[in-house]
Amino acid sequence: MAVIKPGIPKGTRDFLPETMFRRQYVINTIRTIFEKYGYEPLETPSIERLDILSGKYGDEGDQLIFKILRRGTGIEKAGPGDRAFQVTDVNEVIDFALRYDLTVPLCRVVAMYQTELTLPFKRYQIQPVWRGERPRMGRYREFYQCDADVVGTTSMLADADNIALIHDVLTSLGFDKFAIRINNRKILTGIVEYSGVPETKGMDVLAAIDKLEKISMDGVKQELKNRDIPDAAIQKILPILEIKGDAFSILDDMASVLQISEKGLEGISETRELFTLLNELGLPKHHYAMDLYLARGLNYYTGPIYESIVAEPNVGSLTGGGRYDQLIGMFLGRDIPATGTSFGIERIIDVMTEMNMLPSKQTAAQALVTIFDETTRAASLNCAKQLRAAGIKTDLFHQASKLKKQFNYADKKGIPIVVVIGPEEIPKNEVTVKLMKTGEQSQVKTADLVAFIERI
Amino acid sequence: MAVIKPGIPKGTRDFLPETMFRRQYVINTIRTIFEKYGYEPLETPSIERLDILSGKYGDEGDQLIFKILRRGTGIEKAGPGDRAFQVTDVNEVIDFALRYDLTVPLCRVVAMYQTELTLPFKRYQIQPVWRGERPRMGRYREFYQCDADVVGTTSMLADADNIALIHDVLTSLGFDKFAIRINNRKILTGIVEYSGVPETKGMDVLAAIDKLEKISMDGVKQELKNRDIPDAAIQKILPILEIKGDAFSILDDMASVLQISEKGLEGISETRELFTLLNELGLPKHHYAMDLYLARGLNYYTGPIYESIVAEPNVGSLTGGGRYDQLIGMFLGRDIPATGTSFGIERIIDVMTEMNMLPSKQTAAQALVTIFDETTRAASLNCAKQLRAAGIKTDLFHQASKLKKQFNYADKKGIPIVVVIGPEEIPKNEVTVKLMKTGEQSQVKTADLVAFIERI
Repeated sequence: MAVIKPGIPKGTRDFLPETMFRRQYVINTIRTIFEKYGYEPLETPSIERLDILSGKYGDEGDQLIFKILRRGTGIEKAGPGDRAFQVTDVNEVIDFALRYDLTVPLCRVVAMYQTELTLPFKRYQIQPVWRGERPRMGRYREFYQCDADVVGTTSMLADADNIALIHDVLTSLGFDKFAIRINNRKILTGIVEYSGVPETKGMDVLAAIDKLEKISMDGVKQELKNRDIPDAAIQKILPILEIKGDAFSILDDMASVLQISEKGLEGISETRELFTLLNELGLPKHHYAMDLYLARGLNYYTGPIYESIVAEPNVGSLTGGGRYDQLIGMFLGRDIPATGTSFGIERIIDVMTEMNMLPSKQTAAQALVTIFDETTRAASLNCAKQLRAAGIKTDLFHQASKLKKQFNYADKKGIPIVVVIGPEEIPKNEVTVKLMKTGEQSQVKTADLVAFIERI
Repeated sequence: MAVIKPGIPKGTRDFLPETMFRRQYVINTIRTIFEKYGYEPLETPSIERLDILSGKYGDEGDQLIFKILRRGTGIEKAGPGDRAFQVTDVNEVIDFALRYDLTVPLCRVVAMYQTELTLPFKRYQIQPVWRGERPRMGRYREFYQCDADVVGTTSMLADADNIALIHDVLTSLGFDKFAIRINNRKILTGIVEYSGVPETKGMDVLAAIDKLEKISMDGVKQELKNRDIPDAAIQKILPILEIKGDAFSILDDMASVLQISEKGLEGISETRELFTLLNELGLPKHHYAMDLYLARGLNYYTGPIYESIVAEPNVGSLTGGGRYDQLIGMFLGRDIPATGTSFGIERIIDVMTEMNMLPSKQTAAQALVTIFDETTRAASLNCAKQLRAAGIKTDLFHQASKLKKQFNYADKKGIPIVVVIGPEEIPKNEVTVKLMKTGEQSQVKTADLVAFIERI
């Protein structure tokens, strides 16, 4: 039979053990903190009905959804010849698609299981999603998302608790120089209303001022012109870009600017409450700030929006989130408020790997029990059994062979402790324990072995 | 906008928190034991190249593989009208398919990363797979598989260690009355050779004798006749079905029967070694046995085969596995030996749920901190912060409201401890702790709260 050259689709990855240990460390850390905040786990199918996903991610997103053929369709190498399934319109055989994010499935779940779920429902979800983007550095077609959301309350405390959660996760992972930037979509709506541009041009205004930090004041002015924003509106917007200070002072300034916008004043009031709550929650002040120009791309946000920017290493945003009070309504016909945050877990893992922020190399096994020869094998097997019974992660060499070969195996696998039971050790009820790092060897009574290893 | 009626594809499932806690318990138990035996984690992409999967699972399997359309293909609701992608042959747009099992991806990984992997490679993998089977009770289109394999050694100790692993997992999950049945494909080949039937009829002989337990001796005789096995062969096979006793006595009997079959004698020798090793590993004798008639369906097995049968509850097999020394060769051009076992994790979870073998209902939160009113809110938030800092899983009620409502929420979520901080408690530096199960209330000094809850 012809050999099939092994390979995987572009933009997907195999995670070998060394990578898996790193991923597990990050994911377990995040999961532990999610549960510490009372978020509960949810998993949804990888396959969703196509109509559930279509139209939720914008035109571009729709193009990136991976579609799945109906069962039994397509090439079937069943016999000597290939039977090919003939259709004139491929849509006839598409029913399903691969999950594109974790937010739409959450909204579907809330709409489907109203009787089972007690609101507010705090859920976390850590699962892969698939997007047919052009693969490039750090951009994958299959990648994990990691979301925490609170469904069923308009209370700003839900947003504040999400932000406290982000702070706790980033700190626990070892990030130090970061800031969570906070804004409110209603304030942005207020700015658009105040500027007097028509609603259809609103996103242009927001996209331009979102770039303030990158392109400075003159750049934003030019950008607004390029986007055909009338001069009168630009004149009203520019002074807003000069507003500085702490959150409460910015909000005071904006309150006088946005007098005419009911929505804007509502946003200011929400944001005041949010910052009061963050203060009461004791979040360190240098880790969060008001960012009047933060817009965030997604259309569905309706209230607070927040993202975290890591300054050192300078990697941009690691989390993003906000309130989306109208998304669940698409599946339910009436709105249920919700707010949540997503951790860019792939980028977090990449950055932590690059910056050596992860624990040193891990192995599944803490100890390797060697097999000297056939006559001592039973003693070795019994020893492995005792260690495992004590919860010590123990590998067993697969056959009697030269000790050098077995030490070599431990070395390559990074197993720190090697246990030798030879014909000399057995009559003395002893084993030899070698620490691979130092080469140090000790004779240990068999009965004391578990305690000895636990001390190391 | 029209409301989209929420639903999920047939054969897929949403796992709400209560189910997730059960699944996590089972999966974590298994993962812990895998690592205790020195198996290392691996994850592979959900999407494989179609040619990697095709032809590995038999004709029927090929039909059940979910195929994925090339990106951007298929219906795109981009504008007011639907643009439909027209193709005459759907195969033109198929490149990929969803993972069908975890064994073929393992073989591909071993062939792809020869320089990175140290052999023997002991890996475990717990990931979903997809099969387009007709959904029915306990049979899903998306389900988790849970495999442990050793690659790169022909040593029977690898098989013995797999079997010890199965024993440890089933025992740790609380199964008691089970037996791991063990046979060897080479012995079965020996029986076919000894009976004198042509190789092409070999699977018919094995399929018939595999049914001995179900249909007894006369049934097997009839089955062999139905499958056109010659009478002379049947006369040679029937005495084999009367062989009884412990493993070593069966193997002695078979050794004299299979004199003429080199393969058969090899299988007997391997099986003798395997049972010797299981004895040296100290496995309880009532938990494993030789089953001369066990065939197992998959064609790719080449040596020991094993499955575990649970007698109480009477649920059939929960694990299956064996040695497949020639599968990796399909991707490599030369063989690398391998042996492994798969845990029927969905059935295990279903059975354990049904038999109440799982820990009592779990919640993410151990404690709920209530909010009495706006004036006490800061004290409540600070309290939640302290509890979380101490690692206590703590939910925070989302807004100041009637305590009854907040107790109600804790009750519905199954949160066992509720903390109340009202205007009476604050001046005394105290909180009230209510145990939801008994209704018992205690006044606790704020400084002692963490210790108090840890004691409960």
